[in-house]
Amino acid sequence: MSKAIEGGVCAPMGFRAAGVAAGIKKPGSEKKDCALIVSDTEATAAGLFTTNLFKAAPVRWTEGVCIRGKARAVFCNSGVANAVTGSIGLENAQRMAEVVAAGIDAPIIQVCVASTGVIGMQLPMDRIEKGIAGCLEALRPDGGADAARAIMTTDTVPKEMAVEVELSLGSVRIGAIAKGSGMINPNMATMLAYITTDAALSSEALDAALRPAVDNSFNCICVDNDMSTSDMVVCLANGAAGLPSLKPGTPDFAVFAEALHEVCTAMAQALVRDGEGASKFIEIAVAGAADDATAKQIARAIAQSQLCKTAFAGEDANWGRIACAAGYSGAAFNPERVSISLSGLEVVHEGLPTGYAETDAAARMKEHDIRIDIRVGDGAGSCVFWTSDLTHEYVSINADYRS
Amino acid sequence: MSKAIEGGVCAPMGFRAAGVAAGIKKPGSEKKDCALIVSDTEATAAGLFTTNLFKAAPVRWTEGVCIRGKARAVFCNSGVANAVTGSIGLENAQRMAEVVAAGIDAPIIQVCVASTGVIGMQLPMDRIEKGIAGCLEALRPDGGADAARAIMTTDTVPKEMAVEVELSLGSVRIGAIAKGSGMINPNMATMLAYITTDAALSSEALDAALRPAVDNSFNCICVDNDMSTSDMVVCLANGAAGLPSLKPGTPDFAVFAEALHEVCTAMAQALVRDGEGASKFIEIAVAGAADDATAKQIARAIAQSQLCKTAFAGEDANWGRIACAAGYSGAAFNPERVSISLSGLEVVHEGLPTGYAETDAAARMKEHDIRIDIRVGDGAGSCVFWTSDLTHEYVSINADYRS
Repeated sequence: MSKAIEGGVCAPMGFRAAGVAAGIKKPGSEKKDCALIVSDTEATAAGLFTTNLFKAAPVRWTEGVCIRGKARAVFCNSGVANAVTGSIGLENAQRMAEVVAAGIDAPIIQVCVASTGVIGMQLPMDRIEKGIAGCLEALRPDGGADAARAIMTTDTVPKEMAVEVELSLGSVRIGAIAKGSGMINPNMATMLAYITTDAALSSEALDAALRPAVDNSFNCICVDNDMSTSDMVVCLANGAAGLPSLKPGTPDFAVFAEALHEVCTAMAQALVRDGEGASKFIEIAVAGAADDATAKQIARAIAQSQLCKTAFAGEDANWGRIACAAGYSGAAFNPERVSISLSGLEVVHEGLPTGYAETDAAARMKEHDIRIDIRVGDGAGSCVFWTSDLTHEYVSINADYRS
Repeated sequence: MSKAIEGGVCAPMGFRAAGVAAGIKKPGSEKKDCALIVSDTEATAAGLFTTNLFKAAPVRWTEGVCIRGKARAVFCNSGVANAVTGSIGLENAQRMAEVVAAGIDAPIIQVCVASTGVIGMQLPMDRIEKGIAGCLEALRPDGGADAARAIMTTDTVPKEMAVEVELSLGSVRIGAIAKGSGMINPNMATMLAYITTDAALSSEALDAALRPAVDNSFNCICVDNDMSTSDMVVCLANGAAGLPSLKPGTPDFAVFAEALHEVCTAMAQALVRDGEGASKFIEIAVAGAADDATAKQIARAIAQSQLCKTAFAGEDANWGRIACAAGYSGAAFNPERVSISLSGLEVVHEGLPTGYAETDAAARMKEHDIRIDIRVGDGAGSCVFWTSDLTHEYVSINADYRS
């Protein structure tokens, strides 16, 4: 239904973007740390946000924008998170929106802002304002890649993509950038991800498409067990494709929603593949649970288990740890009905080890991509979750993050 | 009230113990892997057990013993956990109890059994029976240290202790051994811990003393985020001190319960100090919460956070990660009322960073023992929790556990 195209967040019509260096990550550095995405016309906006009580000041501001449902722009800096920064932090977040709004001649309440990086530091507002000015000057219809790079922190590669979706009366485009490599354990929201589209939707319709897409993508990944103070997914739909507004319940809406889900899934998987220190990409598929929520509970426990994640790192087919994590997940199931497969090799059948050869299992664990299937009964509930392994490199990155 | 004495689980009168090598950890190895503790007379028994759905076969058996409330012995092997082993596993657990019961002339239902080690393997019953025979022969009134050593897996040091407690009519003794270094995230139960006492109590009274003691000790620690399939704490009280039975509500019972709590706390802390790869011992004290359960929720989230634990390993005073973990713990509190101190240095006051010097904070993180105080408001709820740091060594131990 949808095909990959170039251009990232600028692939949809009527969007421009930029990414510049303003010395926020490190004074004098050439590393890009300010990103701006602008819709030429007023777009509808929908967003999902972290449930962390210490939610960062810009998250609070941008929630307010999305509640009103209209936006012209997203500005984001990396290096400093503007979290746990009190009323000064809130003033700074608003000031960011104000400077961007003045530069693009938009109402301040139509500018989404975000900050990602170290918690507990105030933003260097002089450099932020310099960064905004630089972005305004650099705004281009092919600036998506620069924006993708500017929002990175410990990410090793930028994440962006775009797809074209055929609807009954013509095509629309969806573009996205995302960042996140550690502190990734989203629930109800996720790391930073910005999605643009030139489809036309009311903010309610956009929300109705975005919510399930995020729930089955960004909310189904983890790198570590820490939910960030700054998680957000924001989607702007500006209707620049010139097609009629998509209404929930129609075939076109379903096609669009499915494409949005595909984009979210691809970006979420890209975050896990670039997870801090990750040497493996593990897909955990739980089936046969009482309901989807129960399946997710089991999948999440395995995905977060330090012992499963170190076993993956060690290429050890230690399915006992997988069973153990399922057992403490809090989900209800009958352990005697559980079957487990490692990349297609059944190692546990109905609660008991099969007679598999350890060398067969070991060979499967040596692959970069590993798939774990767990069937816990014959219920209709299922979930697919993605996680990375826990390596020496993860410890190194996070023991020394601020130094 | 209580003073430390020698002898471990054999310090209380009327107990003998042994620990021998039977080649279960590794055929032909001299490493002790079978432990036996015997009370000369019938003792009352109380226990708390893992809530993992994949609870190991011996856990199910021993729960049955403790429900009946009487026991003569505890037998435990290390090396193989007898978990996820189906009906053969249950038969083997019962067979262990049977062989021990025959050897000490006790009813089979008065023998507690336990197994710890690799999940998903059947017990080598020939070697187990050899181990039981060896233990029966080696039983001695000073065998506590051998038993403490025989239950170790990745532990680097044996954990045992004993105290003498003065009651109104004389003294009683409490002894304990415990094991556990990884897969430590108890909830409602814990790693293996066996406690003996020559005090006299009904099984209901023993349970009433043991439950809160475990809840504020073994249930307040973690090394990683994995709750074992084999967790148990079992306490035997044989009354051999010759004092009257301790009744809940009396001053003597309170003194005994407090001493039991002290023993549980010391053993729980010993597990964390010997946590896999641990280079730090971190005490997390939460105060001012709405209730104790809320305080524990906050403390546990910080204690389990991979980002907090790697920051401790890196000696980084990254309190932003502590605030972040409190924020996603699920506990309700006002982030603007939160104050955080690192070993006495206040770094956050009422939701905002204080003007502390980074060098002061860094100096505190260089200590082996670190204390984190978090005040979240002015409620009466509090909790003290203990955790270790997440190091390269943890990853090395667990990436290669089975090889």
